[in-house]
Amino acid sequence: MIKIVILGAGNVGTHLFRVFTQAKEVQVIQWYNRSLENIKQHQKEVALTDQLDHLKEADVYLLALSDDAIPITANELAPLKGIVAHTAGSVPMDVLKQHTNRGVFYPLQTFSKNRAVDFKSIPICIEANNDQNKETLTKLAHTIGENIHYINSTQRMGLHTAAVYVNNFTNHLYQVGAQICEEQEVPFDLLRPLIAETAVKIESITPKEAQTGPALRNDKTTLQKHMDQLSNPVFKNLYLTLTESIQKNDEYSKL
Amino acid sequence: MIKIVILGAGNVGTHLFRVFTQAKEVQVIQWYNRSLENIKQHQKEVALTDQLDHLKEADVYLLALSDDAIPITANELAPLKGIVAHTAGSVPMDVLKQHTNRGVFYPLQTFSKNRAVDFKSIPICIEANNDQNKETLTKLAHTIGENIHYINSTQRMGLHTAAVYVNNFTNHLYQVGAQICEEQEVPFDLLRPLIAETAVKIESITPKEAQTGPALRNDKTTLQKHMDQLSNPVFKNLYLTLTESIQKNDEYSKL
Repeated sequence: MIKIVILGAGNVGTHLFRVFTQAKEVQVIQWYNRSLENIKQHQKEVALTDQLDHLKEADVYLLALSDDAIPITANELAPLKGIVAHTAGSVPMDVLKQHTNRGVFYPLQTFSKNRAVDFKSIPICIEANNDQNKETLTKLAHTIGENIHYINSTQRMGLHTAAVYVNNFTNHLYQVGAQICEEQEVPFDLLRPLIAETAVKIESITPKEAQTGPALRNDKTTLQKHMDQLSNPVFKNLYLTLTESIQKNDEYSKL
Repeated sequence: MIKIVILGAGNVGTHLFRVFTQAKEVQVIQWYNRSLENIKQHQKEVALTDQLDHLKEADVYLLALSDDAIPITANELAPLKGIVAHTAGSVPMDVLKQHTNRGVFYPLQTFSKNRAVDFKSIPICIEANNDQNKETLTKLAHTIGENIHYINSTQRMGLHTAAVYVNNFTNHLYQVGAQICEEQEVPFDLLRPLIAETAVKIESITPKEAQTGPALRNDKTTLQKHMDQLSNPVFKNLYLTLTESIQKNDEYSKL
């Protein structure tokens, strides 16, 4: 049985609390949050605290906090026997270096508070400062998932940047699509099958193979029609920049 | 029984040939292509021609041709009794105006030659120059699909532009993600669950509600870390432009 304390009650902290309380070989013995207000409805399930100096003895302390709060909170913690691990993509493990046992437990997924996620398929990226801690974090990951990877701080930073492209930026493109539909008074639903197919396609072929469209073909007539059609200057600029990126990338990959 | 002739053997033409030959209330009586080489393996299934003046009499002629070829081919056609309809997103119906019966039959999806698509769910966008032609094209659409919409040329142009954002540009962001993974020597597979979830999420919430990330939060520390991490100047520029677009769009939608 692995005993853990979760720190933080944002999206990641809340999802980790949910999934670990259901896992068999894990016991969530405490949940810390700066404000008890958000978590007090769980007081019958788990010990709650808003005091960093009241943390119980555990095998792992998961700092599911904002990037800025991770080093601050790590500094405020008294020396602990257990592993102090954060859950962030773009924070190096080194910010925890005052702790003897440290690591990272980064689930690579987008979390929304009211949307269930299937941890079984989520990549869990692990880093640790020694083999024993790595083993403990791996065991912990196996209690909820099956897709576990050892990723160092530099690689994780890269993954997080890549994740911004395929999640935040992609979602923004969906929003641009939605706004164009709104302007044209056509339902956004018309784009949904295309969005789904675009994502599904790259499960069997690479994004490079899947690339199509006027930018890749350098079809100047269509590119101009699209530019003329766009009224929003920000979307126009986005169109040009993405077109240029597709074309430069294609040239580059032909070298 | 609706008799049709398909013109063109690119991705759209080939998929339309496949689906219409399987549909019950449609007969594909002829397939035209500039070169018979690509389609000769179908000579037992359908009459083939590479001569525009040898087209048979049909109810509908589907011009599944490149945007540039549509007006050229339409001009070369002799006067026809049947409806002349093209399948393109960004070509107005007017380019067919020398034909008495004309229309548009635009399936809004991304087609790859070797990947099956389910026409049942694909939006088919119809336009026609009169009610009778609209009725015939609607009947034709119903033989293969269930998601049929009446869309004029301006709206279709908008839809096509939006489609470029949610398909071509989105796929390019997947490719950027793949290249960052390659540089960091981590498998692109780690991003697949995130890509899938990003697309699935907007089936239940709007893209605006789904937007998260450092750009929206204006988390300058993380934005700077990502910029420092990117070595490719094209990707850096893309990062800045998309971040700015997310932020400007957010300001705009708060007004």
